[in-house]
This record gives sequence, C-alpha cells and structure tokens, in this order.
Amino acid sequence: MKEQAGKLDQICINTMRMLSVDMVEAAKSGHPGLPLGAAAVAYVLWTRFLRHNPGNPSWPNRDRFILSAGHGSALLYALLHLTGYDLSLDELKNFRQWGSKTPGHPEYGVTPGVEATTGPLGQGFGMGVGMAMAGRFLGECFNRPGFQVLDPTVYALVSDGDLMEGVASEAASLAGTLGLGRLIYLYDDNRITIDGDTSITFREDVARRFEAYNWHVQRLDDDTDLDAVEEAIRIAREEEGRPSLIIVRTHIGYGSPRQDSPKAHGEPLGQEAARETKERAGWPVTPAFHIPEEALKQFRLAVDEGARREKEWREMFDAYRESFPEEAGRFEMQFGRELPPGWDENLPVFRSGDGPLATRAASGKVMNALAERVPNLLGGSADLAASLKTLLAGHDDRNIHFGIREHAMGAIVNGMALFGGLIPYGSTFLVFSDYMRPPMRLAALMNIHSLFIFSHDSIAVGEDGPTHQPVEQIASMRAIPNMTVLRPADANETAAAWRVAIRRSRPTALILTRQKVPVLDVGEGASPHPMIEGVPKGAYVLSDCTGVPDVILIATGSEVHLALEAKARLQEEGIRARIVSMPSWELFAEQPQAYRDTVLPPECGARLALEAGSPVGWHRWVGYNGDVIAVDRFGASAPGGTVYEEYGFSVDHVLSRARILLGK
Amino acid sequence: MKEQAGKLDQICINTMRMLSVDMVEAAKSGHPGLPLGAAAVAYVLWTRFLRHNPGNPSWPNRDRFILSAGHGSALLYALLHLTGYDLSLDELKNFRQWGSKTPGHPEYGVTPGVEATTGPLGQGFGMGVGMAMAGRFLGECFNRPGFQVLDPTVYALVSDGDLMEGVASEAASLAGTLGLGRLIYLYDDNRITIDGDTSITFREDVARRFEAYNWHVQRLDDDTDLDAVEEAIRIAREEEGRPSLIIVRTHIGYGSPRQDSPKAHGEPLGQEAARETKERAGWPVTPAFHIPEEALKQFRLAVDEGARREKEWREMFDAYRESFPEEAGRFEMQFGRELPPGWDENLPVFRSGDGPLATRAASGKVMNALAERVPNLLGGSADLAASLKTLLAGHDDRNIHFGIREHAMGAIVNGMALFGGLIPYGSTFLVFSDYMRPPMRLAALMNIHSLFIFSHDSIAVGEDGPTHQPVEQIASMRAIPNMTVLRPADANETAAAWRVAIRRSRPTALILTRQKVPVLDVGEGASPHPMIEGVPKGAYVLSDCTGVPDVILIATGSEVHLALEAKARLQEEGIRARIVSMPSWELFAEQPQAYRDTVLPPECGARLALEAGSPVGWHRWVGYNGDVIAVDRFGASAPGGTVYEEYGFSVDHVLSRARILLGK
Repeated sequence: MKEQAGKLDQICINTMRMLSVDMVEAAKSGHPGLPLGAAAVAYVLWTRFLRHNPGNPSWPNRDRFILSAGHGSALLYALLHLTGYDLSLDELKNFRQWGSKTPGHPEYGVTPGVEATTGPLGQGFGMGVGMAMAGRFLGECFNRPGFQVLDPTVYALVSDGDLMEGVASEAASLAGTLGLGRLIYLYDDNRITIDGDTSITFREDVARRFEAYNWHVQRLDDDTDLDAVEEAIRIAREEEGRPSLIIVRTHIGYGSPRQDSPKAHGEPLGQEAARETKERAGWPVTPAFHIPEEALKQFRLAVDEGARREKEWREMFDAYRESFPEEAGRFEMQFGRELPPGWDENLPVFRSGDGPLATRAASGKVMNALAERVPNLLGGSADLAASLKTLLAGHDDRNIHFGIREHAMGAIVNGMALFGGLIPYGSTFLVFSDYMRPPMRLAALMNIHSLFIFSHDSIAVGEDGPTHQPVEQIASMRAIPNMTVLRPADANETAAAWRVAIRRSRPTALILTRQKVPVLDVGEGASPHPMIEGVPKGAYVLSDCTGVPDVILIATGSEVHLALEAKARLQEEGIRARIVSMPSWELFAEQPQAYRDTVLPPECGARLALEAGSPVGWHRWVGYNGDVIAVDRFGASAPGGTVYEEYGFSVDHVLSRARILLGK
Repeated sequence: MKEQAGKLDQICINTMRMLSVDMVEAAKSGHPGLPLGAAAVAYVLWTRFLRHNPGNPSWPNRDRFILSAGHGSALLYALLHLTGYDLSLDELKNFRQWGSKTPGHPEYGVTPGVEATTGPLGQGFGMGVGMAMAGRFLGECFNRPGFQVLDPTVYALVSDGDLMEGVASEAASLAGTLGLGRLIYLYDDNRITIDGDTSITFREDVARRFEAYNWHVQRLDDDTDLDAVEEAIRIAREEEGRPSLIIVRTHIGYGSPRQDSPKAHGEPLGQEAARETKERAGWPVTPAFHIPEEALKQFRLAVDEGARREKEWREMFDAYRESFPEEAGRFEMQFGRELPPGWDENLPVFRSGDGPLATRAASGKVMNALAERVPNLLGGSADLAASLKTLLAGHDDRNIHFGIREHAMGAIVNGMALFGGLIPYGSTFLVFSDYMRPPMRLAALMNIHSLFIFSHDSIAVGEDGPTHQPVEQIASMRAIPNMTVLRPADANETAAAWRVAIRRSRPTALILTRQKVPVLDVGEGASPHPMIEGVPKGAYVLSDCTGVPDVILIATGSEVHLALEAKARLQEEGIRARIVSMPSWELFAEQPQAYRDTVLPPECGARLALEAGSPVGWHRWVGYNGDVIAVDRFGASAPGGTVYEEYGFSVDHVLSRARILLGK
C-alpha cells in the first residue's frame, strides 16, 4: 500500500515535471530547471497541506502560496491546472504567448490562483511576510472563541536568488522580530545560479543567518523523501511563535541531462534532452502534455476537498454572523473592498487661519480622521513615524514599525493589499522612495491598492542636504504606468488627495511637504469645498484672471502658493495670469479633452510650470513655447528657505521668467 | 603615566563630543546623538590605527574611513578639523549653512577627507566593501615582494540603520564570500532608532548573522574602555581571511540629559541640555567650539605622522619605480585617472554585413577590445554575465560575480570608483536597475566614474513578460541630475557610446538591446566613422532628406532602424523625412543652441519620437505639436517581435502616426 502510494505520488510529481518541460519546449523559452527540481516539494505542500479551494481562488480563509522564484512559473501553472483551477490545458500549451493566461512569470490578476506577481527576486519573499502580517492582524480583529474565521498559513517557495536579495533580508529580520508563526518558506536549495555554482558568490550559512533572525530552521538533504518533507512542514506548522524556513537540498533540472547545471535554469532543454528526461523517468515521449488519468484524479481531489472546506467555513461564518453581526458585516465589507458609509464625512476642512501647515501635518490629521471611520486603514513608516505624521493615534494595533527597511516595507504593503481586507500604507522621506522602487513597480503592475506616503518632498528639506533632498523622484514615479501620483498644494488639497487615494483603490503615491505652506483661501465656507471637486480631476483653475489669460502658471504642491503670490504681482504689472493647481498628472490625463482644454486652453501657449523637482516631463503641459522653473541639479545643505530661494523659487524669479516668456 | 594618558584621551574625546554639540547647536539642526555616543570608538580608530595623511587626502595608500551613519557628520568634521585636514574651525561653525564645506551629511568632493557621500543608510556599508575589493584587486596588480605599494584597510562606522538596510546584507554576504580581510566595521550598537528602542523592529542576533556571512565578530560591552577597543581593532587587523565586525555597545547622546533616548538622535540638544552635558563632562560651557590646547596638539600629531608615512611610501615607490617601471607607470596613470595612449584605437568597427547584432553583443565585443588596452576596466553583473555579455575574456581577475544583489553591486561599483585607480562597471537587466536606484543616485551626486550597463532594454524582451520588460526605467534615469544615459542604435553607436562612457569620467548608464538590430549603413569606409562624431553630441542627423524636411523622426536605440525603414516608405509617399538618432538627451542638451537647431530646426514642428519606453519627457524634444510613439502601459508576455508590434512599433504604425501629424 505504501509502495502503491509512493508510485502514485511519483507519477503525480512526474506529471508536474513533464508538463513543465513540455510548456517550455512549446514556448521555446522559459525555465525548466526549477520545476524539475522543486516538483516533489511543491507536490507535498499542495496535496498534503495547502488549504485552498480551486473553485474559488478568492476564498478569504485560504492558505496563500507564493512562488517567489517566479521564473519557475511552469510549475505553478501545472499545479493550478492539475488541481482544478480555471486554467485549461490549452493555456498551458500557450505558455508565454500573446493573450494567454500563462505569462512568463506569474501575474496576479491574469491567472486564477496566482496570489502575487513574482519574478523580480526577493519580492515574493517580502510579500509573503506582508500576507502573514495581514493574516495575523485580521485574525486578531475578527476571530472569536470558537470562530477561527481567519487563520491562514502563508507558504512560499524561495530560491537562492530570493535569499541573496536585500529585500528578503529586511523582511526576514522583521518577520523574526514579529514572530510570525504562520509563515513557512521552502528554500529550493539547488546550489546553482545562472553564473554557476552558488559557491562563487553565496557561501553564507543560510540556516545560521535565519536562526539569527529568529526563524525556526530545518534542513532536508533529500527532497525525494516525501514523508520527510511532510514531517518538516508539519513541524513548521506546529511552530507558532516563529516563521519557518525549510532548507531542501534539491537538484536543478532534476532527471534531465542538464541536472545540477546552470544550463538547466533558463532555456528549454531542447528536443533531445527533453526526450531523454522523459525516458529516464519512464514517461511517454509523446504526446506532449501527457497527463495520466490517475494523476489527474489524485490532483483533482483538491476540487471537492476545497469546496468542502469552504462550505464548512461558510457554515461557521453564518454562525459567526449570528453571534457577531457587526464583526461579520465588517469582515464582508473589508473583503468586498467596500468602504463604510460616511467614511469621509468627518474629514477635516481647513481654514486659512489654520495655516501655515505642512502638508505632512495636514495628512496626519486627515489620516487620523480616516482611521476613525475606515477600520482597515493601517500602515507605518521606515523608522520616521514622528516626522511623517503617519501614526494613527489610539490605534496602536494599526501602527506598523517597519524599521529602517524601505524595500521590505514596500513589499509588505503589497502583500497586505493582496491578502485582502486591508488598505495598507507605507511611508518614508520622498528621497528614500528610491529604496522601494521595485515594490512600487509591482504594486503598479498588479494595480493593487497599495498606498505610499512620502514627505520631505523637495530641496526645501534644507539642512540635511542633497542626500535627503529629492529631485528626480516625482518625475520617476510619474513614469511608472498605473501609479497615481498626487502632490497636494495645501491642507485641503491634502484631504482631497486622501479621498482619491482611498476611493480609487489603486496604487497611489502622496507627496507631502516637510515645510509649512499656507492654507489657501479659496472662498471659505463654500460647500462642497472646491478642492474636493478639483483634485480628483488632476488639475483645475485655482485662481483665474478676468478675461483671457496672458500667461498660465501651472504649479503643484508647495509651489502653488508661490504662483498665487506671483499672480498678484503680475496683476500689478497689468499681466493677466491664471493659476492652475495640478496635483496629479495622471488624473488630469484621464479627463476628457474638453475639460483639459478649459483648464489649459490650447490658444494660450505662454505657460510657466513651477515644481521643486526635476523638469523632466513638464513640457507635455507647458508645450514648446512654455517654460519650467524646476530643479535640474542636486540640492544643497542650508536652511530650507535659503535653498528654496537660491534654486529659483521666489516670487521675483517667477516674475522675471514670466516676463521673458511674454517677451516683456 | 597611564592615568595621565587616560586623562588626555578623555579630553580629546570630549573635544570631539563638545565640538559636535556646538556645531549642531549653532546650526539649530543636526544629529548630536551619534557623535556623543561614538566619539570614543572613533577616537581610538583615528588616533591609534588610521593610516592617513591630512596634508594629502588623496594619497593612494591611505586607509579609508567611511562614516556610513552619515547623519553623524559633525563627528567626522570634528575629526577632520582636529587632525589637520583643510577644514577650518569657521567651517565647523558654519555647519549646514549655504556654501559651507560642512553639509548636513558628508559629501565626497565637498569636504577634504570625506571618502564617500553618506546619509542614505546602508550605502556606506556597501561602498566600503567596494573599496576593500578595489584595494585587494589593485594590491594584487601592483604589489611585488618587498613593495607593498597598496595595502590599505577600509574602516567604517555603521549603525543599526545601516545593518537593517538590505544593501548591507547583500554586501556583507559577498564580503564574507570573498573573505575580505582588510575590511573592519565598527557597529555603533546604541539600541535606539528614531521610532524608539531597536527591540521594536530589530531583535535579530547581529553577531550570529554576521558569523553566518563568514565575518569575524567581536563584542565590546564598554566603549569607554579604550584599550579594549584598541585590542579589538588589533585582533580584527590580524584577521586576514575574513571581514570583521566589532559590535560596540554605545549610548546615543552619551553624557547628555537625553542619553539613551531617541530624542538624542536628530535634533539639537537645546541650550539647557547642551550646558548640562558640558557641565557633567567638566567642560567649559562657554565659549562654544572650545578646543583645549593639549587636545589639539594630540590630534595634530596626525599631520607629521601622516606626512612621514606618505614620505616613506614615496621613497618606497621610487625604489619600486626603479625595479618595476611599467607597473609604477601604470599605477600613476590609473590613480591619475588617465587613459593609456591609444586606448580606443583597437575598438571594432562594424559593417552592415556583421549584423543584425544585439547592442548587448556589440557592447561585449567593444568591452573586450577595451579590456586589452584599458587595464583598469573591471566589473561584472548580478548573476547574468552570459546574458549581458559583460565578461572580459581572458581577464578572469577583472570579472566580478556580484551574485543576485543589484543594490550592493551599485554601491560596490561606487566604492571601487571612489577608491581610485579603477573604471568599474556593474550590469543587469534594465528593469532591475530599480533595485540599484539609491547607489545610482549617489554615483550621480558624487559625480564619479561609475558605469552601469543595462541590457534587455524594452518590451522587446518578450516572453519573460512585464516583470522583465522595462518601461519607465530610461525616463527615470534621465531625471537623475549628472547621470549620462546613452541608448545606442546599433553596434557602431554602441562603440561610440563606450568611448563616451570611458572618456567622460562621469556616471554613465548604457542601455542595450536584448534583440538583434541591424548594423546601420552610414556609408561604409567613411573615416572617421560618422557615429564617432555624432554620438558624443547626444543627437545627430543620421539620415536626411533632400530639401526641408516635412517631418523629423527622432529615435533612440532599437527604434532607430524602424525610423529608417519608415523614412523610405514615407519617401515613396512623397513625404520628406529626416532621421535624428538621439542616443543621449543629456549630451544633446549640453550642445550649443546653434548645433541643436541644426539637428532640430525650430521651424519644423512636425516631429515624431520613437522610443520603446515611457513617453515621459519626450515633449521637450517633439514640442507641443509633436507626437511620441512610446509605451505608456506595462508590457506583456509573448515573443518579443509580437509584443513590439502590438505596442505600435511597426513601420505601418509609424507611417500612420506621421500622416496624422502632417494632417494627411
């Protein structure tokens, strides 16, 4: 009987392997090495532990599995097809082809059952930590005695590349500090990277390193001993107070002529080697994509099993709803990505007498008001909470201390957003957004509701000097597709920007000042506040002249009040200026051309943009005849006001440039 | 006698501390906590070990000291002034003021004796590893029996923030793998971060972690025991086969009322607390910037000592020159940042019959030709050597395997460039440049000769899909001040781009294709090759029409040949098109207006730009009436040619957009 089971297991594992080989061969591109090497481990995890429902990939209480080594996508697609997800065999045959659901690396939102987009190494590792944090936080929110409505385990398959990347180190250290027991990572320790043996570059003692991070570590020398793999995962699951790393000695390209060679990593085996691999495994060489009936039957047990599990859970949830109707309602609202009624009704409205006020300070007030109504807003900063004003007072459970780990913070925020039920944010100084570009890109690619809050947004940072003064960061963020970047001009625009950030449910970056700026007087008492209308459109006429404008000053953030001051002076000189506040290029670009033309009439080519950041991209709005007052070099260390003025951000300089533009 | 020495040491240490306190008080901004806490450790290192010559901060064989925790800049400035560098007391009094040599964070090139710009945490840690690698490589190149012309030790003071950042983990793992014995880091273990006690976020066992990386680790519980500090550094120096970490338990804000509190970190103590700090230390409260005569005398011993050491070294070097004239000449050439005569004379010239050829492949050929003549060109990739074609054949000592650690690679390249004597490069896929944004920014800020080679430069990467297809990366790099970005069109432009990269001695990014592109026919046999003239100007007329152009097609990289094909078709339709190849915006922007107007005549507003990347910034060149064929969304997984065409990069699409532009 044991023999028999062993044989069926072997057939199942070889099914995964050979499907992967055939996918890569059909695509003439891809990575056979990992699927061949890690199939046995993945098989044990998926068939003996993973709690999932292939019929409903969004069941909230499913376990999460992340293929952090995303290049092994064929393995994941094989598993998804075999266990009965909505991923047909034809999709597997169309691996890496235009319009298929089987892209080269796993993509969230494209393939049912893919929990996270992976491929950029280390990101999956970090996102898994975020998912485990989300699971724990939400479990503490919602679970009640007798009702474990949320208790998932987060699993990932990670590679040497993942472990070399700094983001994994950051996330691992935080996971150990937090003692995330429901996090189990299987390390595909195949000792091979693209450039050769890992000993070339990676001689560290991984086990010892992870023990130092407070992880529970196990080693398995033989991945083909399925019971040993099972036992290790079982032990890891019993370890409730620490994350687990199971180091499994595997063999890249297992069973192929390229086994244990870098050549197995990232290119098809080729017809001959594929044939040999199949023959060695006692597998029919043709037809390709062969799936033995008994293997399919075994894998597809997951369908009924998953349906049963979810059904049991739903029954429990119904009883939970009886006992805890408020919690159940909140649970469904949060996982339904809905906002509570009146979520934004208590947001502060600022009067000019409330200023001057840094937009980071305004943001803090807005966030704290939001926190009262939006129970799933949570996040934190990379050791700058007080500077960034991102602490939610009275909600310590929702304040996350990421440590000085911006990169992991970004990945963790993504993981929390992917988990569901949460609106997570991460925050740091704008200049250090550079440290988290990879997860920001992934947030944008996945188009998820990750919020990034950046303060200290220009050379006006002052004394800390050029290392702490962003220049190119705003332009660089605007270049990321799908990312909505908002740089509000004052406290009320900040509140409006937060409304957009919450409601839009998309990756969003808020750019805030360190220094105080006036609360702009836009006709106090007007209701609704004009900025609530204007900000979501990306740009709007904040202050107009009578008649046709001679010049349009377009500004964002802290430069808007400078534009307003310049306008008054220009008026004295008989020059009619319109002031356009433009907190978001992306939102403005989404507006109908008709609206855009009312804000920036094509006939007015005399346009001057003001932004204390890189000029790159501004010519899109000012045109060929326009001009830009921006920062085209690095900043300098001096009091912020001095730097700001020395770099051309003064009313006098704006006037002189406006006059040049008008030929006066 | 021992007692006396102890007393003088104490006075010296307090001089460093109180100068730092006074600098921060005078600036009303800065970080007193680290200087107060780490002064004793830094004092022992600087007075008992550091081999340096304050009179010549560029003496090649000096030890290097990096303040990785750059926020403690006041400590470093105090040391530089006291030990006799060209940094006056007035500069200390002008800490963080406009035009001073004492900016908020240490800046390379601004302050004599500052070896690296630091402040963004973890970067100093990584650059130190690069310096140690440079020192070892150059030592192996130049040292001969009896002539240790290069044997520096690299020291750094690192903080908990440095150790939390992923870049430090990456660099530490590589340093351990390489067994860099001449690397000694002192960890200022003060247990406090901005958000509070390190236990909030950082409970890992640092010693165990670094032992896992193959570092030699020592712990000191009492930083005030100077002899113990000395002994630890001595032991670390004797450890030749491993880098060393000395964990010193320190106290942030030592001796101040804010000792051991986060409040000591990043703001002035304030007048009262500063007074109390001085009184507790038995220090005169006024005048500020008090330097006891005996302390200055003690510190200034470094001047004569440094001069003596350099003199001895120069005498040795003269003898070395006698015995090894070729090596001595090369040493002086390399450290003089000069290039050998004829360095570029053997660069390949490609004929159209040599193509099609990916520019990464052309780059590989050019680099290998360069390697024969330029002995100090060295570098490597983040585990993609074969894909990137960056291996230097026959020069294994110059091929660096960074592992899957892009961030550390960037920092290490910077460290090697700072060390002197080398022209280092790092390389990876363009999309993963995101992982190394922080060191790329630092390279640009320091304006050093760090080279970044990026291949797989667009959606044409194909099957690997959007995670591996860059979109926003080129635009984002162009936004970095001082960074020269070059995207050559073909093999010959690639050779010309390399000439620029080598000769310009500034931070440069080369952007290369994965896919093959034609070798453009520009009149073969012409000498000098027209691209050698054109590329350094950033943009040039590659192919012109007869008469005034109806439309100008501006393209970079792989889109240039598409523009050329479109030109031929437009001609058939009677439309005169000029083709401008624009490998570098930055170089073109540096040209005189007159030249720019010959390439892009202001009267021709019908301009169409082609670039398989973000459109952000292109309106600067095409103007308000122009158009851009670019990529404004993420890529897709499919064969590269398919993706390229689906995204609008086809002759037909170029023609249709050109016709629209011309109203036809």
